Amino acid sequence: MLIVQKYGGTSVGTLERIRAVAERVKRTAAGGNSVVVVVSAMSGETNKLIEMAQSFSKMPPTREMDMLLSSGERVTCALLAIALTEMGNEAIALTGRQAGILTDSVHTKARIEAIPSAPVMEQINAGKIVVIAGFQGVTRNGEVTTLGRGGSDLTAVAIAGAIRADLCEIYTDVDGVYTTDPRIEDRAKKLATISYDEMLELASMGAKVLQNRSVELAKKLGVKVVTRSSFNENEGTVITSEEGCMEKPVVSGIALDKNQARVSLIGIADRPGIAAEIFGALSNASVNVDMIVQTVGQDGKANLDFTIGATELDQTKYALEGFGAALGRQEFDDSVAKVSIVGVGMKSHSGVASLMFESLAKENINILMISTSEIKISVVIAKKYGELAVRTLHSVYELDK
Amino acid sequence: MLIVQKYGGTSVGTLERIRAVAERVKRTAAGGNSVVVVVSAMSGETNKLIEMAQSFSKMPPTREMDMLLSSGERVTCALLAIALTEMGNEAIALTGRQAGILTDSVHTKARIEAIPSAPVMEQINAGKIVVIAGFQGVTRNGEVTTLGRGGSDLTAVAIAGAIRADLCEIYTDVDGVYTTDPRIEDRAKKLATISYDEMLELASMGAKVLQNRSVELAKKLGVKVVTRSSFNENEGTVITSEEGCMEKPVVSGIALDKNQARVSLIGIADRPGIAAEIFGALSNASVNVDMIVQTVGQDGKANLDFTIGATELDQTKYALEGFGAALGRQEFDDSVAKVSIVGVGMKSHSGVASLMFESLAKENINILMISTSEIKISVVIAKKYGELAVRTLHSVYELDK
Repeated sequence: MLIVQKYGGTSVGTLERIRAVAERVKRTAAGGNSVVVVVSAMSGETNKLIEMAQSFSKMPPTREMDMLLSSGERVTCALLAIALTEMGNEAIALTGRQAGILTDSVHTKARIEAIPSAPVMEQINAGKIVVIAGFQGVTRNGEVTTLGRGGSDLTAVAIAGAIRADLCEIYTDVDGVYTTDPRIEDRAKKLATISYDEMLELASMGAKVLQNRSVELAKKLGVKVVTRSSFNENEGTVITSEEGCMEKPVVSGIALDKNQARVSLIGIADRPGIAAEIFGALSNASVNVDMIVQTVGQDGKANLDFTIGATELDQTKYALEGFGAALGRQEFDDSVAKVSIVGVGMKSHSGVASLMFESLAKENINILMISTSEIKISVVIAKKYGELAVRTLHSVYELDK
Repeated sequence: MLIVQKYGGTSVGTLERIRAVAERVKRTAAGGNSVVVVVSAMSGETNKLIEMAQSFSKMPPTREMDMLLSSGERVTCALLAIALTEMGNEAIALTGRQAGILTDSVHTKARIEAIPSAPVMEQINAGKIVVIAGFQGVTRNGEVTTLGRGGSDLTAVAIAGAIRADLCEIYTDVDGVYTTDPRIEDRAKKLATISYDEMLELASMGAKVLQNRSVELAKKLGVKVVTRSSFNENEGTVITSEEGCMEKPVVSGIALDKNQARVSLIGIADRPGIAAEIFGALSNASVNVDMIVQTVGQDGKANLDFTIGATELDQTKYALEGFGAALGRQEFDDSVAKVSIVGVGMKSHSGVASLMFESLAKENINILMISTSEIKISVVIAKKYGELAVRTLHSVYELDK
């Protein structure tokens, strides 16, 4: 098999960890596989570099930040190749540029434009283990860029797509994707497989195994991804197409997002297009609006409820000031949480939502907002009930079985 | 003026030092100069990276070492550009590759093959301060290389040559070149100017202000170099052509090298070409032979005395083993030191050597070997007399005046 393995910051956080990674890579290669390894910076390094830069400037130039930040992955990349060579493997370290990762020129959050397969496949065909510095690329003008948060995952998935790898393993310090957060429900079970779409819904709700950008790219390129731990030998969770999921449970997982705030606008002036104006103003203020519920009261005036990230509360208030009295009464509530159930099986099952609402009602948990998609149902409830709701639903949908 | 400034590891060793460097660069630019800055890695960083690599391998692959080591200069380079930008300057950071520094492919000690002036001059002409990561280059195939010890000095001199800079300032933690080591003779004086050739003789004898490779390149390209301290505002020492030296003292400086060992071969077999064989064997063993004196004894047999670096004593003994009895009696002595006087004025003055020999004799210092060149006279003496010899000669040649 042709395998891409990506090791995150904690997986290469010390020299001992790098050695352990080298041994794992060696074993994978010894099993008859061709291996491409993508590495992050040693944990803490990127933050150290950012702090150094910010000691000089609150808003350092992004071009120079990219030159600065890209150095961390180069260090890990070279060290791992050195360790692999010492263990008797033929290994070669490639920077993002040398691996052919072409990006646009939006520094600190560049998008990958193209990856030719040749630079990596030439080395693979020569029998070498290829170690690539993640998170970084180069523009057509030779400028160094970085890909933003989760950038090394993106490198791995993009490389896997470019060279048509059989598998892309994402190694972190957790075993895979769980039915819910094990710190909330200790009967949470690791999922063997999960579909791209389910993963997208879970990731956007705080399951931090893999960022949405990488999942989206994996889906687009048809890359089979496995997330697993570099600290043990446990099987991980396969993220693949819906067809590739052997089991299609009604509900695959339950997510809790306590970093939410609810904004209620009660009695909005009856003016055409005012909703568009409101969300336009919020968008301009870089506020990410999540759930939106609109109702029309008996007086013909509309009420608008929506949720935002709790940290964006001040920006939201500021953005809404310009509307004055037109928004009616404004209420802001950051004592809420969002609980979501996710599962591709919902598409073909009825009664999933009503079971959720009934179960929560039985526990006297009041539902403030509801939002549904094809494979997800989210409710906003009082934050204090968040964990109880997760445990209740985990049991109701038999995720501990 | 178009000025290249190079700051060494201690000059950029902390964030405070980088800020101080940024302020000096800003002042230089504010004085109406165009400035190119070449930086080393923060002091200690390169050693840290080497130690990390050596924890994996005693002989790490040189290609990967270069990727590893080149990261240190990139960090300083980006940070300095960020600091300069924050201070209101237009600054741009360039990696070795971006600055166009093309080298051969001898990793960890690459030689610069070409530097086009365009990449740097385009930015200079756009009014920017250009900050370049020293010590590194790139091959025509896009491989990252480093230039070996003193590589950042070499980058600075080569860039200065390529863009025909008016001046190349090398900033370290010492004020310049002294008539001798101030730790030995506290009346040592800083030289205002010194010729390339004198500097070459002094550098090879342990004056560590600037390595020979950089002095040789400066001489070849006609780059006017100033070495000075980044920790104060003192004038440094100008290193320039002999014609550019205003003063041509008989003796410019006195150097002491205590890292010497003397090898005596007494009664060598009378065989044609045996000397060539001996030095061929030593060369193959990577032993650097310095001074050589051959005498023929009354019995017609030859005696051969030569000096080597004290650390090369074991290699030397090993290399000579193969000759068996043909070398006669072998004596090895690492209790010796080499004292040298250097000065372009020697060319036109007579009696310089005899004054040296007389002065040492007056102090009862026995001369074991003598070697002379156009601008240098070296003697080997017992190591314990090294400092006394330096102080004696410093006074005799009136270097404290």
